[in-house]
Amino acid sequence: MQLGMVGLGRMGGNIVRRLMNGGHHAVVYDRDPNVVEALTREGAAGAASLDDLVGKLDAPRAVWVMLPAGQITETTIETLGKLLSPGDVIIDGGNTFWQDDIRRARTLKENNLHYVDVGTSGGIWGYERGYCMMIGGDKQIVDRLDPIFATLAPGIGEIPRTPGRDGRDPRVERGYLHAGPVGAGHFVKMVHNGIEYGLMQAYAEGFDILKNANIDALPSEHRFDLDIADIAEVWRRGSVIPSWLLDLTASALASNATLDTYSGFVEDSGEGRWTINAAIEEAVPAEVLTSALFARFRSRKEHTFAEKILSAMRAGFGGHKEPQQHPDPAQQAAPDHLLKPKAERA
Amino acid sequence: MQLGMVGLGRMGGNIVRRLMNGGHHAVVYDRDPNVVEALTREGAAGAASLDDLVGKLDAPRAVWVMLPAGQITETTIETLGKLLSPGDVIIDGGNTFWQDDIRRARTLKENNLHYVDVGTSGGIWGYERGYCMMIGGDKQIVDRLDPIFATLAPGIGEIPRTPGRDGRDPRVERGYLHAGPVGAGHFVKMVHNGIEYGLMQAYAEGFDILKNANIDALPSEHRFDLDIADIAEVWRRGSVIPSWLLDLTASALASNATLDTYSGFVEDSGEGRWTINAAIEEAVPAEVLTSALFARFRSRKEHTFAEKILSAMRAGFGGHKEPQQHPDPAQQAAPDHLLKPKAERA
Amino acid sequence: MQLGMVGLGRMGGNIVRRLMNGGHHAVVYDRDPNVVEALTREGAAGAASLDDLVGKLDAPRAVWVMLPAGQITETTIETLGKLLSPGDVIIDGGNTFWQDDIRRARTLKENNLHYVDVGTSGGIWGYERGYCMMIGGDKQIVDRLDPIFATLAPGIGEIPRTPGRDGRDPRVERGYLHAGPVGAGHFVKMVHNGIEYGLMQAYAEGFDILKNANIDALPSEHRFDLDIADIAEVWRRGSVIPSWLLDLTASALASNATLDTYSGFVEDSGEGRWTINAAIEEAVPAEVLTSALFARFRSRKEHTFAEKILSAMRAGFGGHKEPQQHPDPAQQAAPDHLLKPKAERA
Amino acid sequence: MQLGMVGLGRMGGNIVRRLMNGGHHAVVYDRDPNVVEALTREGAAGAASLDDLVGKLDAPRAVWVMLPAGQITETTIETLGKLLSPGDVIIDGGNTFWQDDIRRARTLKENNLHYVDVGTSGGIWGYERGYCMMIGGDKQIVDRLDPIFATLAPGIGEIPRTPGRDGRDPRVERGYLHAGPVGAGHFVKMVHNGIEYGLMQAYAEGFDILKNANIDALPSEHRFDLDIADIAEVWRRGSVIPSWLLDLTASALASNATLDTYSGFVEDSGEGRWTINAAIEEAVPAEVLTSALFARFRSRKEHTFAEKILSAMRAGFGGHKEPQQHPDPAQQAAPDHLLKPKAERA
Repeated sequence: MQLGMVGLGRMGGNIVRRLMNGGHHAVVYDRDPNVVEALTREGAAGAASLDDLVGKLDAPRAVWVMLPAGQITETTIETLGKLLSPGDVIIDGGNTFWQDDIRRARTLKENNLHYVDVGTSGGIWGYERGYCMMIGGDKQIVDRLDPIFATLAPGIGEIPRTPGRDGRDPRVERGYLHAGPVGAGHFVKMVHNGIEYGLMQAYAEGFDILKNANIDALPSEHRFDLDIADIAEVWRRGSVIPSWLLDLTASALASNATLDTYSGFVEDSGEGRWTINAAIEEAVPAEVLTSALFARFRSRKEHTFAEKILSAMRAGFGGHKEPQQHPDPAQQAAPDHLLKPKAERA
Repeated sequence: MQLGMVGLGRMGGNIVRRLMNGGHHAVVYDRDPNVVEALTREGAAGAASLDDLVGKLDAPRAVWVMLPAGQITETTIETLGKLLSPGDVIIDGGNTFWQDDIRRARTLKENNLHYVDVGTSGGIWGYERGYCMMIGGDKQIVDRLDPIFATLAPGIGEIPRTPGRDGRDPRVERGYLHAGPVGAGHFVKMVHNGIEYGLMQAYAEGFDILKNANIDALPSEHRFDLDIADIAEVWRRGSVIPSWLLDLTASALASNATLDTYSGFVEDSGEGRWTINAAIEEAVPAEVLTSALFARFRSRKEHTFAEKILSAMRAGFGGHKEPQQHPDPAQQAAPDHLLKPKAERA
Repeated sequence: MQLGMVGLGRMGGNIVRRLMNGGHHAVVYDRDPNVVEALTREGAAGAASLDDLVGKLDAPRAVWVMLPAGQITETTIETLGKLLSPGDVIIDGGNTFWQDDIRRARTLKENNLHYVDVGTSGGIWGYERGYCMMIGGDKQIVDRLDPIFATLAPGIGEIPRTPGRDGRDPRVERGYLHAGPVGAGHFVKMVHNGIEYGLMQAYAEGFDILKNANIDALPSEHRFDLDIADIAEVWRRGSVIPSWLLDLTASALASNATLDTYSGFVEDSGEGRWTINAAIEEAVPAEVLTSALFARFRSRKEHTFAEKILSAMRAGFGGHKEPQQHPDPAQQAAPDHLLKPKAERA
Repeated sequence: MQLGMVGLGRMGGNIVRRLMNGGHHAVVYDRDPNVVEALTREGAAGAASLDDLVGKLDAPRAVWVMLPAGQITETTIETLGKLLSPGDVIIDGGNTFWQDDIRRARTLKENNLHYVDVGTSGGIWGYERGYCMMIGGDKQIVDRLDPIFATLAPGIGEIPRTPGRDGRDPRVERGYLHAGPVGAGHFVKMVHNGIEYGLMQAYAEGFDILKNANIDALPSEHRFDLDIADIAEVWRRGSVIPSWLLDLTASALASNATLDTYSGFVEDSGEGRWTINAAIEEAVPAEVLTSALFARFRSRKEHTFAEKILSAMRAGFGGHKEPQQHPDPAQQAAPDHLLKPKAERA
């Protein structure tokens, strides 16, 4: 079928390509005419403006907006809301806050426009691997768009089928889910990202413990020089913790075991934050997901004001003077009296 | 080659079976003669005692101990230490604390006995899937045992190879790793389990947030009735968070979406605890792994004394009376003034 | 000076009493005429309605609203907004969300009404001890109300003065602070409560560790039967951790060392949650404050869905069956292989 | 009475001074003869060696060891064990690991020597304020030493008495506690320090949230420039969170509101770590105390390996490139789409 695509970045461009490979027709628009031009050469119909894009689509139109969440998505959808006609549908495939979906859908409905939110996972691998999609919207509209979703989804592929799913919605096994009404798609995608942060941090902490198993502060007979890259690889088969994230980690470590090309600053996006806000609203304890988020916050600071408060207190009650520079890690890691084996002490 | 196996429980028995399938010979012993008898019928040579087992093995002997970590493993290895001859090797394949490995190896070495620690992952799936093994010990001895490890390991199988591993130890891709000297095997396995706890908790919290998205305390237009089983399934393809643990979760939810057959008490074993102790010794922050452990501790208590202290304080400064029974979750989840959407308030 | 008070609960009633003790005049209103009647007998002027209350005050009026945060405060302030005249001021002394203050002040300003938010701490002890007040609003209005704040505040009292405060705002040492524009008062009070949760949980965990120092799972020579009440008391003098919260804990334990009259359910109010939301918005890691909040959430649940997910996974990979009842804590607390002292093992 | 003191550092020297003020006699030794000389001028009897010290004390002797926990304390106590006579007592007043106390007492008992462990809190303020002491040992010996403890303790002072303590051990109100058998003193002191870390971190996080309330990333109408020093001060009277630690913080902030003389590196000592180890052994969840410890670990690292693992994963699945330098905090703190108020968006 025919789809309009607004936003031809890393995600939007590849979605269009995967759709065209699947026999669909795309009318595409981006602020950057060079990007439009490039996709035109691959078979898409280019548009010079949102107005032009709408004009080139047949009613009932479907326009997929694939832009950074926030103001630009908001403005684009507002503009489209004025250009489109009753019965048309706007799809927000970005990382929008789910409550914004609900608000927008309410507004668009006043003009009989439909709105579908699609949490789209897959990153730079989606073109090849397919996109996992979590969809919110009215059944009738989601069904109308099914050919699009079916093409973008990974399909069953070689991943073993889960027993006991007979009689359940077959789309799910192909990698896309109609999760519920508008907002439900991005809500589920939000929690997906929250979990992602937690999983990443669990691996990261484990590797950190392995990496530091050889520090001088440890008793010499309790030190290990471990090969982190090999450990990541060996866990990929037969252990309890294989995952796609572990595959990626093993790849990264195979080519650069020290990861010294990375600074250690870790960004976060809205989903991780909104997940915690949702947990708080629901009174669900979510220690791990929250800790994972806070670790990223901390990674982006040289020091926190909190740490200075601690030092000020320590100076106050104990006369302690904190070091002014990064202390010798060996000294810091292990107070003398803490780790010396009993044999040495007695 | 020939291997003695002590302990024919869920793990030990299947290890013997997988070895025999691979053409090896096993002499087996267990406190329970019926279990020995059963494996004898499958082709193993049965032993009536440790003494008998040692007598039936050719020197240099290899005896794999596969017992619950702790006193019984300790005693068994002590006894074997007296029965075996110089050059023989004891393999501890259980969940032993790595510092115990180091201590034992030192003692056994006095009699020229060898010791190898094997962190063995695979659980009830190992027979079929193969066992991921993390091995600590002297190179020469680990090499001598290679035929055993090669048979038990999963092998490369259908899992895609990691790019950039050319020239690296090929055993790793087949699912077993010589991690370092004695203790290193169980150290790596320990961290594996620590990570496992963290991954599990990350998924668990995410599903909890999804499950509670429909509670009465939420504003009605912000509630979702989500199908947890379908969400677990859809994430298996194309998302960022597929994993073996997610596969197992999807299976469990497909047959019982409410999980009402589970009480919610969650046990822990030593590895999760030792992982945190190691992090502390190394001064490595490990928030996520620790939170995952503490969530299990809390799951096994009706209430903590800590909570009563909180209530006593609240009564002290505010005259607050805590409810005596599980309060209405809807009331508890969301203070009235917290969640009402602005439109309703203004 | 003269003050109108709406809401004569635990806080509002005592605020009126403290003001009258200090020579101020109060016009009071509450939904419950009996409460109004009671305060009238103590010297206040009673009002039968908000309308009546406004009528009995001299312009420029000051009306303090002391109601549960949320809908009832919202409605009351709306109504007052219609009854009051330009130049009058509404004081919200409750636990309102600071962003609601900002919104309300903007609306009221359209009619030249002033708004002041007062985070009021002191609980049931405020009448005697004075109220710590964190105030947001225009300087001119906060200054106009100073006689009220000066009377309600604790004053310098016997608490030693902080060195180095010469030349600083003297009100602060008397226990009230003009924190900034509208919203700043409740923002600071919100963080006060967030910290309160963290402090409480720190003590609570510590006492829990002391309480459980005698469990059977510990090696007998490492067990202590500690007197929790005496420990709380001894820390009140000369230690690093004396505090008012510790005083209250020592009192509670002196009369009931087991705290068995407390169920262990711990409620939370909005401030603790909003504090975390603020931390997230500011990208400030706030592990301790968040953990304290989540411990309360968990205290109100028999089991979480998260825990059932963990059990389902464990059954999936290991065939583990979790206990159906509260397990023997001694067994649970310490795996056999974990805690046995080395002497016993070897 | 007479006391031998080994170790005349910040703590040991002041303990001797406070004892002499109280009419006791001290024989003192330190590696540094200048320090011995100085205290001699204040009235103590100086000793040139441990041997000399023992010789100058009357039997039954009491020797207080006040040295950094670890090897030096261990060696000193071993040496004293050889020099002392049956019936003499060694007091370890340092920050010794409680299990070391138990081991040492067992060894010393073979020669009929007594051992008492005293967790001593008070820091640089103890001379003036008195020392809070948590004592482990045999009743008879602790009673024998009572004159020492009574003098060192703060006494009831001006701190209000806790109601309901009639009939309880009166020593507790004077600031010292016989907590139990050997080891109990340091165990209770250990938890004291664990709580201390938690309290400090709770305040620190709260002040951090207040400090960052004015960052550019926040919507302009939601920003506050708060005076941190005034907030610390105002909470000292009438709030729920006054404490000695808050007093110290208010002092520090009064003289240096930005705390820019502090680097932000925060050290930790053994007690905080052992507290977590104890919690784990007892299966007591201790999120807050653990987070407080981990925050200190993190403060001493420029970046963790864990953070690099996260970046490597993000590059792997999303092609994300992390910034190489400390990013603009305003940008980092708040994704555009997260915080813009609805009014601005719509």
